[in-house]
Amino acid sequence: MEETLTLHTLQTTITETSHSLDVVWVLISAALVMFMQPGFAMAEAGFTRSKNTANILMKNLLDFGVGSITFFLIGYALMFGTDVGGLIGKLPFMEDVRPDIDLSFLMFQTVFAATAATIVSGAVAERTEFKTYLFFSVITTAIIYPISGHWIWGGGWLSELGFHDFAGSTVVHSVGAWMGLVGAILIGPRIGKYNGKANAIPGHNLTFAALGVFILWFGWFGFNAGSQLAAAGTSNTVAISHIFLTTNLSAAAGTLAALFTSWMRYKRPTLSLSLNGSLAGLVAITAGCDIVSPEAAIIIGLIAGVALVFGVEFIDKVLRIDDPVGAVTVHGINGALGTILVGFFATDGGLFYGGGFSLLGVQLLGVVAVAAWAIGTAYILFKILKVTIGLRVSARVEEEGLDIYEHGEKAYH
Amino acid sequence: MEETLTLHTLQTTITETSHSLDVVWVLISAALVMFMQPGFAMAEAGFTRSKNTANILMKNLLDFGVGSITFFLIGYALMFGTDVGGLIGKLPFMEDVRPDIDLSFLMFQTVFAATAATIVSGAVAERTEFKTYLFFSVITTAIIYPISGHWIWGGGWLSELGFHDFAGSTVVHSVGAWMGLVGAILIGPRIGKYNGKANAIPGHNLTFAALGVFILWFGWFGFNAGSQLAAAGTSNTVAISHIFLTTNLSAAAGTLAALFTSWMRYKRPTLSLSLNGSLAGLVAITAGCDIVSPEAAIIIGLIAGVALVFGVEFIDKVLRIDDPVGAVTVHGINGALGTILVGFFATDGGLFYGGGFSLLGVQLLGVVAVAAWAIGTAYILFKILKVTIGLRVSARVEEEGLDIYEHGEKAYH
Amino acid sequence: MEETLTLHTLQTTITETSHSLDVVWVLISAALVMFMQPGFAMAEAGFTRSKNTANILMKNLLDFGVGSITFFLIGYALMFGTDVGGLIGKLPFMEDVRPDIDLSFLMFQTVFAATAATIVSGAVAERTEFKTYLFFSVITTAIIYPISGHWIWGGGWLSELGFHDFAGSTVVHSVGAWMGLVGAILIGPRIGKYNGKANAIPGHNLTFAALGVFILWFGWFGFNAGSQLAAAGTSNTVAISHIFLTTNLSAAAGTLAALFTSWMRYKRPTLSLSLNGSLAGLVAITAGCDIVSPEAAIIIGLIAGVALVFGVEFIDKVLRIDDPVGAVTVHGINGALGTILVGFFATDGGLFYGGGFSLLGVQLLGVVAVAAWAIGTAYILFKILKVTIGLRVSARVEEEGLDIYEHGEKAYH
Repeated sequence: MEETLTLHTLQTTITETSHSLDVVWVLISAALVMFMQPGFAMAEAGFTRSKNTANILMKNLLDFGVGSITFFLIGYALMFGTDVGGLIGKLPFMEDVRPDIDLSFLMFQTVFAATAATIVSGAVAERTEFKTYLFFSVITTAIIYPISGHWIWGGGWLSELGFHDFAGSTVVHSVGAWMGLVGAILIGPRIGKYNGKANAIPGHNLTFAALGVFILWFGWFGFNAGSQLAAAGTSNTVAISHIFLTTNLSAAAGTLAALFTSWMRYKRPTLSLSLNGSLAGLVAITAGCDIVSPEAAIIIGLIAGVALVFGVEFIDKVLRIDDPVGAVTVHGINGALGTILVGFFATDGGLFYGGGFSLLGVQLLGVVAVAAWAIGTAYILFKILKVTIGLRVSARVEEEGLDIYEHGEKAYH
Repeated sequence: MEETLTLHTLQTTITETSHSLDVVWVLISAALVMFMQPGFAMAEAGFTRSKNTANILMKNLLDFGVGSITFFLIGYALMFGTDVGGLIGKLPFMEDVRPDIDLSFLMFQTVFAATAATIVSGAVAERTEFKTYLFFSVITTAIIYPISGHWIWGGGWLSELGFHDFAGSTVVHSVGAWMGLVGAILIGPRIGKYNGKANAIPGHNLTFAALGVFILWFGWFGFNAGSQLAAAGTSNTVAISHIFLTTNLSAAAGTLAALFTSWMRYKRPTLSLSLNGSLAGLVAITAGCDIVSPEAAIIIGLIAGVALVFGVEFIDKVLRIDDPVGAVTVHGINGALGTILVGFFATDGGLFYGGGFSLLGVQLLGVVAVAAWAIGTAYILFKILKVTIGLRVSARVEEEGLDIYEHGEKAYH
Repeated sequence: MEETLTLHTLQTTITETSHSLDVVWVLISAALVMFMQPGFAMAEAGFTRSKNTANILMKNLLDFGVGSITFFLIGYALMFGTDVGGLIGKLPFMEDVRPDIDLSFLMFQTVFAATAATIVSGAVAERTEFKTYLFFSVITTAIIYPISGHWIWGGGWLSELGFHDFAGSTVVHSVGAWMGLVGAILIGPRIGKYNGKANAIPGHNLTFAALGVFILWFGWFGFNAGSQLAAAGTSNTVAISHIFLTTNLSAAAGTLAALFTSWMRYKRPTLSLSLNGSLAGLVAITAGCDIVSPEAAIIIGLIAGVALVFGVEFIDKVLRIDDPVGAVTVHGINGALGTILVGFFATDGGLFYGGGFSLLGVQLLGVVAVAAWAIGTAYILFKILKVTIGLRVSARVEEEGLDIYEHGEKAYH
């Protein structure tokens, strides 16, 4: 009797300790993902002009502030509340879901939501009205991101179909990028960007940009391996170690691929494209980091790095869409690409591993469906904002810099 | 018999593993808090002028170096040694306390001590003699900080009264700020700051300032959640998850409150005030992050953000005290505010939760007592330094920049 | 029977949880070490001129990309594959070692390899052909670093002799520095560095340099304490706590020693030397962080800080070797010094603890052997690169800056 009691107590203790390790893992990962915010801020500031630096920093600070609060109040329930018809989660005022929330999970998901929002700021940089961005940011983290997120991670219809997006190539990165794409088109290019030819408008500080990319790379270990949501037990430790490795290899391969592609195509190994190549590799591996081999991760990264160089050129020169930091290519094209490549490289169900076309089909469907959702809602939202607040600052403000006119201070003295 | 033996062994192993998880948590948190040092360095450098950048960086580097060693040799024993009369801990040469020290706890407390010291450097920036700062830094981490720290965290009289300052709104932040306040007053304003009206002296690089604030936000997860000092077991995991959430929500609310307050008051959403709003929210939640609800954390952050904007204006325009980075408002006013708000919002003992005025009274007493201690000792110390080394550099050095004259090198070429 | 079964299950669970904590520790440490990459990038960029910033950032990005992939494909097996004659590990194509690899260990070792490579970039900064550096980086992480690494950490001859280099003062830092030394000599000084006297060529941004050093200090906790490779169980938790403490104390002491030495010698407390003093303290404690007392760590840091100031002067003024960021002194001299000081201060086997000259002799032997290996292979490699690709950019490129000519973009606009 006593023995059994002790055994029971031991069992409880070990279960608790084991769960505690999971929570520690999720919280540390959440902190790392939160740290991606200055990563984005530095990269976006570095890749744009110094007259708009306070503005871009302000947007990054703002959307994390806004995202943290709106996701807590509304977004989380829409994304992870009890499923309603495969489309949406129940809001808290319909049903009290709070007691069931594991707060570490809420925290982890909050920083993800903020990441999606912050991607938009890069694509619409250097000419967007601050108030407009503020409203956009609220709606994104409160409604748009959580709903498509629910489809995939909240038990919605895409998860039912077996769509695989482990850490959010599509859920987070593509959603942000497609909304940014719509914004970049509707707001229009910066003054002087396309007059006859496509002019390069170089960023003001590549050291900040490089720092930002390195910070993002660092934070991405939390983003991807944290998405395992657990660390205790052999299957979890194998998984998170595997994810660290695939994430790092794909980032490295993306860097080198973009470096050599830019070297061959433009005769010079370009830092800014190599940096975006690192991000491309990171975005692309995010969907399948748990389910592809290390060797496949290298291949995925190489594809992403090449796609980055051609994608940036295509959007800039052919489509003539002005995306100052390359956000659409980095997060949109490579987010979609990475999600689709899961259909080929997944060791469980991928085409190259004898899984046939089933998974590949679902991956394609998911990519298209989420793109349609993000583009559709962003289109409506930007159209509404256009006729209400207005999308764009005046030409004079744009030419003299948003910092002085919109924020009353310059970044540099 | 054998069964019992095995049970015993198992129990030992599980207890050890459990304790190991606690230590891992404390060490990772210590690393995060250490990382707040570049956060302070970047924020302070960014908010001041480029001719004094090497000097401010040097102070931040120096006080971490000094703090690490003096706290190890003296401060730790004064703060956590066997209590003597509720006022002070016994020094190691009186009693060998070393064997009892858990080294991870010592490490964690060391980085806290250094944080208190580094707050002072911002308030006295751009005109203080380097040697003076050096002596000040030694005394702070060796004696001043540990003694009031002992009252609250070392088993001293305030802890006996039930004073609640979970992670150091008062212990760390206020102490640093009140000493900085005394320094700012006694050293006097920078040349050109007050000639008839209060002139704004803008910092030289808001990108560094923004980076610094983001780093501080990141490190604060270690500061607050690490203060739980344990992670294993359900009560600990719930606590640290809760602390992550309240910390983040308060920071977000502080950001938005400062943003909108500055927008309404000065017609523009100001980046530098919004950044300080993030810090205000972080400082304010630090005392009660474990004991207030997430909703209360948002309210505390909102109050802190509003207080930040008015506090900065009050100290600058009304009191005419020159605090170049707003350290007194961020860490002092909001440290006090956050500590007092625990008396209202604590779910256990707070006025709004039916706890009456008892806790509130103790919180007020603690805030006043620690302020008196910090202000009194800093006053004596600065007065002694004034008549010995001198507090202030010459006007010529101040005008041409401390970097060249005090350190023989410029930060930028 | 049932009891026994449950006991067995419990035992398995606790063993798994315990191992999971170890893996979590190694992975978080790996992330911290990866984060040292932007630390190096910021420090090296800050200490060099703005016309070569894109180039130095590119090298840092590149060598992490290259290192991640080559170490995975070749280096890891050479370093940790089955020992062949005490000299080298078997390559994977000779024997399939992959199934035995703990992926978290592979990840941890990968970021170490990249660290060794990146040290070289600082010593040869501002005049080296990019292609040359690329080849050099590949060979370093694929072959040179793994082979001497095998001698010490892979079960090779130095480990057989009892050589103690806990986290790599010699394995990582010295190897990088001695290769950098050879490079700096063979490539020659920058134009204008030595015309009659030794001219100081100040870096362009000490804020970046300071940020870099703080980041390195932060990442070093992962570098040293992660090298314990485990965290569960009392002996491990005591070890990692001890390592945190010794690492931090030595860094602090190194900072202060360099500060005061530069103050006495050059009449001014110099920021750039103090920053390098922090790094010197960190490099020096790396070999013995597990086996020296906290007080010894302070002494080691003090020695390192003094050695830093005199070492930099000696290499620059006496040897007239142009090492733009002081990499040879920081990582080479202090790496050797720290390794040798283990022979004096090791509480188990050190001369000052009654261990006699045995350990000291082995430490000296190891330092010399690894230096000979690194210098020899680097010499051959640079000579080959000289007659094939060429080592140095043209005088015109060097004078106008490598950024425009080699990479087609400037870092600042």
